[in-house]
Amino acid sequence: ARDAGTGAEAEWRGRLDTLYARVRGDTEALAAPLSAEDQTVQSMPDASPTKWHRAHTTWFFETFILKPNLPGYQVFDEDFGYVFNSYYEAVGPRHPRPSRGLLSRPGVAAVTDYRAHVDLAMHALIKVRERDVADLVIMGLHHEQQHQELLLTDIKHAFSLSPIDPVYCEHERAPETTTPVAPVNWQPLEAGIHEIGWREGDEAFPFCFDNELPRHEALIRKVAIADRPVSNGEFMAFIEDGGYRRHELWLSEGWATVNRLGWEAPAYWRRDEDGWSVFTLHGRKRVDPNEPVCHVSWFEAAAYAQWAGHRLPSEFEWEFAAACLPAGDALPDGPRPHPERLRPGMRQDVWEWTMSPYSPYPGYRAQDGAIGEYNGKFMINQMVLRGRSCATPAGHDRISYRNFFPTDARWQFSGIRLATDL
Amino acid sequence: ARDAGTGAEAEWRGRLDTLYARVRGDTEALAAPLSAEDQTVQSMPDASPTKWHRAHTTWFFETFILKPNLPGYQVFDEDFGYVFNSYYEAVGPRHPRPSRGLLSRPGVAAVTDYRAHVDLAMHALIKVRERDVADLVIMGLHHEQQHQELLLTDIKHAFSLSPIDPVYCEHERAPETTTPVAPVNWQPLEAGIHEIGWREGDEAFPFCFDNELPRHEALIRKVAIADRPVSNGEFMAFIEDGGYRRHELWLSEGWATVNRLGWEAPAYWRRDEDGWSVFTLHGRKRVDPNEPVCHVSWFEAAAYAQWAGHRLPSEFEWEFAAACLPAGDALPDGPRPHPERLRPGMRQDVWEWTMSPYSPYPGYRAQDGAIGEYNGKFMINQMVLRGRSCATPAGHDRISYRNFFPTDARWQFSGIRLATDL
Amino acid sequence: ARDAGTGAEAEWRGRLDTLYARVRGDTEALAAPLSAEDQTVQSMPDASPTKWHRAHTTWFFETFILKPNLPGYQVFDEDFGYVFNSYYEAVGPRHPRPSRGLLSRPGVAAVTDYRAHVDLAMHALIKVRERDVADLVIMGLHHEQQHQELLLTDIKHAFSLSPIDPVYCEHERAPETTTPVAPVNWQPLEAGIHEIGWREGDEAFPFCFDNELPRHEALIRKVAIADRPVSNGEFMAFIEDGGYRRHELWLSEGWATVNRLGWEAPAYWRRDEDGWSVFTLHGRKRVDPNEPVCHVSWFEAAAYAQWAGHRLPSEFEWEFAAACLPAGDALPDGPRPHPERLRPGMRQDVWEWTMSPYSPYPGYRAQDGAIGEYNGKFMINQMVLRGRSCATPAGHDRISYRNFFPTDARWQFSGIRLATDL
Amino acid sequence: ARDAGTGAEAEWRGRLDTLYARVRGDTEALAAPLSAEDQTVQSMPDASPTKWHRAHTTWFFETFILKPNLPGYQVFDEDFGYVFNSYYEAVGPRHPRPSRGLLSRPGVAAVTDYRAHVDLAMHALIKVRERDVADLVIMGLHHEQQHQELLLTDIKHAFSLSPIDPVYCEHERAPETTTPVAPVNWQPLEAGIHEIGWREGDEAFPFCFDNELPRHEALIRKVAIADRPVSNGEFMAFIEDGGYRRHELWLSEGWATVNRLGWEAPAYWRRDEDGWSVFTLHGRKRVDPNEPVCHVSWFEAAAYAQWAGHRLPSEFEWEFAAACLPAGDALPDGPRPHPERLRPGMRQDVWEWTMSPYSPYPGYRAQDGAIGEYNGKFMINQMVLRGRSCATPAGHDRISYRNFFPTDARWQFSGIRLATDL
Ligand SMILES: [Fe+3]
Ligand SMILES: [Fe+3]
Ligand SMILES: [Fe+3]
Ligand SMILES: [Fe+3]
Repeated sequence: ARDAGTGAEAEWRGRLDTLYARVRGDTEALAAPLSAEDQTVQSMPDASPTKWHRAHTTWFFETFILKPNLPGYQVFDEDFGYVFNSYYEAVGPRHPRPSRGLLSRPGVAAVTDYRAHVDLAMHALIKVRERDVADLVIMGLHHEQQHQELLLTDIKHAFSLSPIDPVYCEHERAPETTTPVAPVNWQPLEAGIHEIGWREGDEAFPFCFDNELPRHEALIRKVAIADRPVSNGEFMAFIEDGGYRRHELWLSEGWATVNRLGWEAPAYWRRDEDGWSVFTLHGRKRVDPNEPVCHVSWFEAAAYAQWAGHRLPSEFEWEFAAACLPAGDALPDGPRPHPERLRPGMRQDVWEWTMSPYSPYPGYRAQDGAIGEYNGKFMINQMVLRGRSCATPAGHDRISYRNFFPTDARWQFSGIRLATDL
Repeated sequence: ARDAGTGAEAEWRGRLDTLYARVRGDTEALAAPLSAEDQTVQSMPDASPTKWHRAHTTWFFETFILKPNLPGYQVFDEDFGYVFNSYYEAVGPRHPRPSRGLLSRPGVAAVTDYRAHVDLAMHALIKVRERDVADLVIMGLHHEQQHQELLLTDIKHAFSLSPIDPVYCEHERAPETTTPVAPVNWQPLEAGIHEIGWREGDEAFPFCFDNELPRHEALIRKVAIADRPVSNGEFMAFIEDGGYRRHELWLSEGWATVNRLGWEAPAYWRRDEDGWSVFTLHGRKRVDPNEPVCHVSWFEAAAYAQWAGHRLPSEFEWEFAAACLPAGDALPDGPRPHPERLRPGMRQDVWEWTMSPYSPYPGYRAQDGAIGEYNGKFMINQMVLRGRSCATPAGHDRISYRNFFPTDARWQFSGIRLATDL
Repeated sequence: ARDAGTGAEAEWRGRLDTLYARVRGDTEALAAPLSAEDQTVQSMPDASPTKWHRAHTTWFFETFILKPNLPGYQVFDEDFGYVFNSYYEAVGPRHPRPSRGLLSRPGVAAVTDYRAHVDLAMHALIKVRERDVADLVIMGLHHEQQHQELLLTDIKHAFSLSPIDPVYCEHERAPETTTPVAPVNWQPLEAGIHEIGWREGDEAFPFCFDNELPRHEALIRKVAIADRPVSNGEFMAFIEDGGYRRHELWLSEGWATVNRLGWEAPAYWRRDEDGWSVFTLHGRKRVDPNEPVCHVSWFEAAAYAQWAGHRLPSEFEWEFAAACLPAGDALPDGPRPHPERLRPGMRQDVWEWTMSPYSPYPGYRAQDGAIGEYNGKFMINQMVLRGRSCATPAGHDRISYRNFFPTDARWQFSGIRLATDL
Repeated sequence: ARDAGTGAEAEWRGRLDTLYARVRGDTEALAAPLSAEDQTVQSMPDASPTKWHRAHTTWFFETFILKPNLPGYQVFDEDFGYVFNSYYEAVGPRHPRPSRGLLSRPGVAAVTDYRAHVDLAMHALIKVRERDVADLVIMGLHHEQQHQELLLTDIKHAFSLSPIDPVYCEHERAPETTTPVAPVNWQPLEAGIHEIGWREGDEAFPFCFDNELPRHEALIRKVAIADRPVSNGEFMAFIEDGGYRRHELWLSEGWATVNRLGWEAPAYWRRDEDGWSVFTLHGRKRVDPNEPVCHVSWFEAAAYAQWAGHRLPSEFEWEFAAACLPAGDALPDGPRPHPERLRPGMRQDVWEWTMSPYSPYPGYRAQDGAIGEYNGKFMINQMVLRGRSCATPAGHDRISYRNFFPTDARWQFSGIRLATDL
């Protein structure tokens, strides 16, 4: 039946099945160091409990793939539609986001059961459904990978609020070196009209989200881009130079934010008599000047660029640069809980804020139905980040990828790369 | 000295040791139906996570008894002083109350270890210390019993916010009867000057908190007091008569509260096509008209009294009545998760709001030191409740007991008894 | 008709007419130094614009006296019922209190016309209506006098927020003296059961509000009361002794308020290199140590008493003391914008916080109808102040008078008198 | 030097002097219908009192022109720098914006004196200073014109909150016609690279703000633009079709805003039994279907475009269209308090929201010094509006003009013009 015997079909089914198992397993591996209590807390409305991430990604497969595509599928628990829907208005009402941390039940064990139930059905579905469903499965896996990154950044935020500095996992990295990171090299870009956006048939990146489409032309002006992000050491110079106290470096709303929230350094930094320490998923440690600065907001990125006499790149400049310039030394596979030390290249361990507001590409159309709510409805009052971070899962990033957050968000692994007009 | 061989000494040590073991065990029994996730959540600033209650009561013994009185005692974890101090300014800074639900660690298992560590030391202390420490131990146990009641009311509040109506434990009570509760009998009190407050040497109640002192004279006017609290059935008549929509029944701040919070019934009630259901620790069920109304605020109690043409008793009237009138049929021992059906008597399953603001008694003096913060510093902008509730542990209540909450608090098992001027 | 010819009737009509004219004129005199702009602003929800006070008191006469009692009376403007109703639910909906400062119209000139229109009708009514209406007119005048005091305290609060220290009127007082105020004399009170509340037929005080009734017995214990309020100089000693930084002096909610609002001194005080200055209706000036401390909250009064080793009197102690002890040297007639320097006596230039929550007297019943909302519905979560202040109009105060404000209110001329247990 | 005798110099001085007098007089004419009370109120943090606008624009001339450029100039009042600085950090601290409505002083008369004092000095300066100061004077006048528009929109907002529907001025327009506005004609634009931004030496528009620079190339795609804005009648069809209740038409943040604020129609609209009425500066009137819809937020503009199956133009498309297409029938000179009925053309009576976030043009540099805070520091989280409105003063608009407001702002005369991809 359904000709499972042919080699080509057997092959994609096999590959998809393996991929599904791997990505789903990665989530469980990330959650493994976290106790039931850890998986329950929510530290702010923007963050979610670990067990919610584990269940919501499962709900996504159940709701958008199993229910419409697997005849006879038995929904695990009808209540979960209300509890684990994130923001899909078309799917119905849902538990309010800021109250996710109030729900102790379903508990961690129930979530584990839920995942097993859905995984079983998904493996069955992959065996029998036509190829067209593969695209949806792959989308579900990319969705899960996004939540893997959030799982790490959300628990980091929660742990950072604890007076006892919890450790997610011990650091296995080599001890700190004193070799300073090399100065920035400025890489000029070729001015002109260039194509931007995901390219149909791209073998290196066979998947994209709808916000990377359509591929279209953009005008690139004369500009050079730094060959690496800003380091902690460079950012400390900004702080020492009064960066957080000089209004002329900030946009008006950024300056108001700095003063309202009392910012004096990137998130998780704390000054003591010995200088700066920083809370990480490996526990509290000294700030390493050779790591990329991260957990800065767009406001801080823009202020730093102003102070440095340069600017942030546009997302088009960034993407064009990533297409032309070297990715750099391979970093270890993600998701990892902390950035490596800096080395040159376009592929880094921190997301890079751009000067581009998150707007639809010319001719953009959201997908039909609930899945169309995935990206399109957020295209206002956010800024685009490009690249990836240490917390981004292997296989999830690509040069046309558009990440986006509001201008005051700091809990992602977000850093700064500079550009300069020529 | 330390003549543990004499019978009298052996006896009080033995009794104290047994009492300690029983009360501490009661807490664990109350927490037993709750998962690690359940024990972690905090649903509002006024409520605390179960594991926090379990640890804070333990910290109380460690801080106020073991550290000053048991030579060589090893503090379990120095960080716990910050995490589990509730409100004792004299003991030092502490984790902010509204953020108790953000702490996943120390987890439930660590709290269990903490309790075992302190229990061991406490049993040792009871064996060797002079009699004077017994008073402190007893106070610590009464403190723990207060938190047992809060443990139940706090988890009830948390569960009530869940869309899936969690069940703390199944109900074992007989099915609902249709025999209506008997009408109120009004019990006149003898007017005159009467003594109020805890009586030194009272054998029935060998312990009191400092707010029940000093015993003093109060003027009781001609008044009769109802022989039982208001029932759900009676309160439904108030609702049906537009009680929540008639401004003339409410104090100004009560009316503002009703409108701001959209109150239409006691907490946890919900109206559906079949009438009223109510969320309980046994799950959602129909409102039983023969149970005492509970989870009403002082504002609602006062509005109900206004509607009924009577008033709330003063705390002095209440205490004098409790000294003269029958306690009523013995109710099962507490703490229990839900009130029994109404029967006449002064000893009931719901706390009873009085018209008395929580003020110091004439000549009141708080104890010296940190322990003096226990009661005295809360003597403003709260109203006194008298009696007990189903959630009050056996042996914890007495007629001079003064409970107190702000006028809009509804999450305690708080009900209404009426008085009327003669 | 109506026998206006008899002397007795002519006399009370004449006296009432004169009294009406005087009180109404006093309001206009208080508003006279204020520009149209001054009369328009509202600095906080608790305060009201001057023109609102002028119009609301007029609306009171129109609504409660003219409309029901003067046949053919033409309402000045039907919209005013909505705009100038303060809190009478029974009279209908009204403009929200916090938004009174958003209304530029009706303007000051329209309010002046409104007052003239109502005054004309009131004089007509006083000429023709039976004696029974006199009580209502007198109540309306006492209401207007309460608003005269608020007019001063409200504009003081508004001016205090201005960076340019506006002056309401210049000070005409003699220059500061260096003679220090005499130390407190403690006046013992006779213990026993004493009558409290307004006495029917009291010739000195022919009027009272319903909250002063019924006269009833109260138990006074052995106590002495200070012969004068606390001075600025004495309060400065409290500040210098760390009064605002020592948690043990404060009730829990008071301590939270001090820290939330950053209080370091009474309202309107500011510390500079020369010591303390204070904003007054005469402009900013040095704090005079011989004036009574004022603009303190109940929390501050209670903390001061704790620091001084005494306590606040109960309102019954205060009233009994006022009945027995000398009023003191006559102070100039009010309303005046600032307290005189201290002298001994019970009749002072600052309201005196008591330890009594504002509760109904035993047997209290609010009047029927809308006017019953005047006092009764505020009897919760406020504390009683006794006496009077410099801003209280002549003829408005009496020893049974109960003023009341929440525990954090500071914008009234509120001070501290101590009592001490014997 | 200073050769005032030559004709050319006399001419520019004369023209500048006349222009100064006219613009300054226009402000006073706009304020003339407003009483002292009207000029004092502030209805929200985004709006300012009329007298503040009158004084702040005066402070701008005093601070940026007279003090540095007119030797011997006497500052009118040193305090005004604190009170009337809007947002210039470089000039020093200032009165908090949300509290402008708390200041009754300086009053309207003092502001009038201030204006006279500065006008006298400005006329003197215009007579004697070199030509270079003319640019600054012209900038000051454009600044004043911006505040003229705000003066109207701010008082409209304040009046709209009044329960008595104040009238700013009577309407003089012809009675409503039943001739419906003509259907939209779609005007195709020529695709390609076009120049955008203010053109140096443009005789029609001899002035621009720094945010219109530098002129630069932009890529215009195949698009057609509507020949007129959306009408009230068309917008009513959106409302009737459930526009405000269909989540799929809204961006996520827009949908949250609609629900949070309860929007059901444009600002100032109210539905009654006869349909829609709207509050205007001429008082409340029926909604005229042939007027342009206005007082819509960017969220509403975007939702309407989604519903209509089109989109908003980019600011580049708009500017290029304005350069190519007819301006339309001349509308009467502004500032006027209400839009005329619709007619085709690019020059309209409502500002037109674009899909362009307010970002710096490539190579943008803010001016040095405090004046550089004028525009640049607001270039984030706002959207560009193009065109003008009825409230825009004559001579103030130009096709390169960039207005900007946050996505939820509705109190400007902001409307919608559609574009459609070809
Ligand atoms: Fe998701
Ligand atoms: Fe406790
Ligand atoms: Fe009033
Ligand atoms: Fe300005």
